[in-house]
Amino acid sequence: MRSLFAVANRPEVVSLAGGMPNIEDLPRAALGEAAAKLIADHGTQALQYGSGQGEAFIRELTCEIMALEGVNANPDDVVMCAGSTQGLDILTRVFIDPGDVILTEAPTYVGALSTFAAYQAQIVHVEMDGDGISMAALDQALATVRAQGKTAKFLYTIPNFQNPSGITQTMERRRELVEFAEKEHLLILEDNPYGLLTIDGTPKPALRSLESDQIIYLGSFSKIFSPGVRLGWIVAPPAVREKLVLTQEAATLCPSVFSQFLVKTYFDTFDWRSQIVEFNDMYRARRDAMEDGLAKHMPEGMTWTHPAGGFFVWAQLPQGLDSQAMLPRAVTAKVAYVPGPAFYADGFGSRYMRLSYCFPTPERIFEGTRRLGDVIKAELAMRATFGLDALEDGQTSPEQAPLTGKDQHGQGPAPDIL
Amino acid sequence: MRSLFAVANRPEVVSLAGGMPNIEDLPRAALGEAAAKLIADHGTQALQYGSGQGEAFIRELTCEIMALEGVNANPDDVVMCAGSTQGLDILTRVFIDPGDVILTEAPTYVGALSTFAAYQAQIVHVEMDGDGISMAALDQALATVRAQGKTAKFLYTIPNFQNPSGITQTMERRRELVEFAEKEHLLILEDNPYGLLTIDGTPKPALRSLESDQIIYLGSFSKIFSPGVRLGWIVAPPAVREKLVLTQEAATLCPSVFSQFLVKTYFDTFDWRSQIVEFNDMYRARRDAMEDGLAKHMPEGMTWTHPAGGFFVWAQLPQGLDSQAMLPRAVTAKVAYVPGPAFYADGFGSRYMRLSYCFPTPERIFEGTRRLGDVIKAELAMRATFGLDALEDGQTSPEQAPLTGKDQHGQGPAPDIL
Repeated sequence: MRSLFAVANRPEVVSLAGGMPNIEDLPRAALGEAAAKLIADHGTQALQYGSGQGEAFIRELTCEIMALEGVNANPDDVVMCAGSTQGLDILTRVFIDPGDVILTEAPTYVGALSTFAAYQAQIVHVEMDGDGISMAALDQALATVRAQGKTAKFLYTIPNFQNPSGITQTMERRRELVEFAEKEHLLILEDNPYGLLTIDGTPKPALRSLESDQIIYLGSFSKIFSPGVRLGWIVAPPAVREKLVLTQEAATLCPSVFSQFLVKTYFDTFDWRSQIVEFNDMYRARRDAMEDGLAKHMPEGMTWTHPAGGFFVWAQLPQGLDSQAMLPRAVTAKVAYVPGPAFYADGFGSRYMRLSYCFPTPERIFEGTRRLGDVIKAELAMRATFGLDALEDGQTSPEQAPLTGKDQHGQGPAPDIL
Repeated sequence: MRSLFAVANRPEVVSLAGGMPNIEDLPRAALGEAAAKLIADHGTQALQYGSGQGEAFIRELTCEIMALEGVNANPDDVVMCAGSTQGLDILTRVFIDPGDVILTEAPTYVGALSTFAAYQAQIVHVEMDGDGISMAALDQALATVRAQGKTAKFLYTIPNFQNPSGITQTMERRRELVEFAEKEHLLILEDNPYGLLTIDGTPKPALRSLESDQIIYLGSFSKIFSPGVRLGWIVAPPAVREKLVLTQEAATLCPSVFSQFLVKTYFDTFDWRSQIVEFNDMYRARRDAMEDGLAKHMPEGMTWTHPAGGFFVWAQLPQGLDSQAMLPRAVTAKVAYVPGPAFYADGFGSRYMRLSYCFPTPERIFEGTRRLGDVIKAELAMRATFGLDALEDGQTSPEQAPLTGKDQHGQGPAPDIL
């Protein structure tokens, strides 16, 4: 996989694989000037060690940002971290002993799976439908875990434009989920890196806005400003927050003070709300190019989700095709994606792929779907030539089970049912 | 302790407690201009995600820096991290299972003890003498650990201007130590944040310069440039390095790309070698102020080490005094230090204190020793008034055991013997 992706990063390949935001539109020259002033005037603070919890000014800023999604948080309850990934890392360290269960959506963010694996957590996937995580499946999963005498330490969920499925939890589902968490004393980790990147410009209220102590919130500056500064944050109830600060100190002493000052400089100096509107216009054009390209180039039997924001489309291959086996041929045809199994802890998902529209230009995205369509059609033609479909007829693998979920827009599949 | 140190950070208190470098002398205005150009010209790279191992250009730079201490390292074997603390964190994660033994000097860096504790390692302290870690004590400690059926996963050592003792391993001791590690297949973690900050301007060859695969090296930009950028590095043999990169990706995705670019900009744009010479002149004046102040203000019975670089003096109180119990009175008298027990995993060290000379001005340091001297004298006077010394006569606590080590300069104590 790693060597394939090295090839996929060559300029001639259209990579629909990566999750890098497009930061071309940041006001770089002006930001540079602001940074110069920051270093000249406040360098002795900005280049020095700082607080393990993060500086007060940046924790206040995160609360301003979260208010856009209805979250009423106190800066005292915010812990800054080296990207929300590192937040996830210290949260996992605080909560997980080897063998503890973490519930996640199926599929879910590959980076979270890596972090959870580093602490030897057992992942139990919970099926989604077009409205988000399935409440019936969650209820059943939790009951099964408990019946086995195990502890589900938390549910990890990405309510907005989920990575990789692109699905967004409806408000009704959010309310049901928080109610369930309260009733079952189930902790929820709400990971929300994309929440403000909405196609229609109206962010949905976060789970955390529903005011429950069962919810720990993870935010990030990576998608609304810059991933290179590695700055994210956690909002947690006081008892957890105190442990997190000690853990953060043991892990890094403190988050990058310079990054905190630079981010604050950007948010103070520029009209960041308008910048987010610009980002959304830019991503809308890319999502549209992806949808247009898929509609035009994909063969019969191929389905995909229709995200209302974020970076990702989740596509299901026609029956009999395997996204992992197909990847080398796709890369040879100069297009790349991430095969579905990356997003499962258990090897499922081989009929799926994640297609991201965040980084390449709309023209490249459209061209990428053309190349991908050709590869899939060639696979189908080869299978037809050798009569493989006939051979496999009558088999039902989990990948081919009927879908019970509904798509967010009433078309295409829900993610895999496992 | 935390609330005490909050008071200790008030401007009227001379804090000899912190380990913050003095970065006043960095060329801030010019660095700001260089940063402006960096963001304007290379912002889309510098503000983007990057490699989990760290960018090639910065790994090459670390090799240039390590060459000053005789280390011949390959950029391929370098893994960048969010400060060397985070390097220590991922190393501990890779090597330690709960209950595994880590050997450390006695005393040792409080931050390392926190990190090791986070992974439930068992710390076995090894006595030092004025030449560094005692080989006889190390031999015995390792034999004892092994006889108990336990695994000493590594020895953590700070060969230069050790934190907190200020002691530097002699070259002879370094050779003995590496030979021992080879013979016993004992891994060594060489933590070297202060190596270039020598009073005489001549850095000692690092343990890693002795070309052994038993040595993993930890370096940092915190003391030669800026701690606020949180950037350090690990040099490890290939098999370990591969695991570290995966662990780094799970922990943070990647170290701050912006910090890597900013550090590179500084090292490319400025005469950083001359800047280090300036730093050393500045710290020499502070160490001299500390030594002068201690010589002038300390009562009979007080002893201390005489560092040839770094930030710290390790002082032993007259018999019967307790550095932890005395701290509130010191802070009331507007001087702060770190009590000895912080540097032990086992609660020992109460007769010791760490006095740092890195951050306050020489005048403030001198004044700080005057205030501290008064506090200690008052303690002694109180004990004499109440006849406490007479009462305790004849008792020998581990803190009061005869010192078998010799001081680096033949005067004052070796650190505690435990």
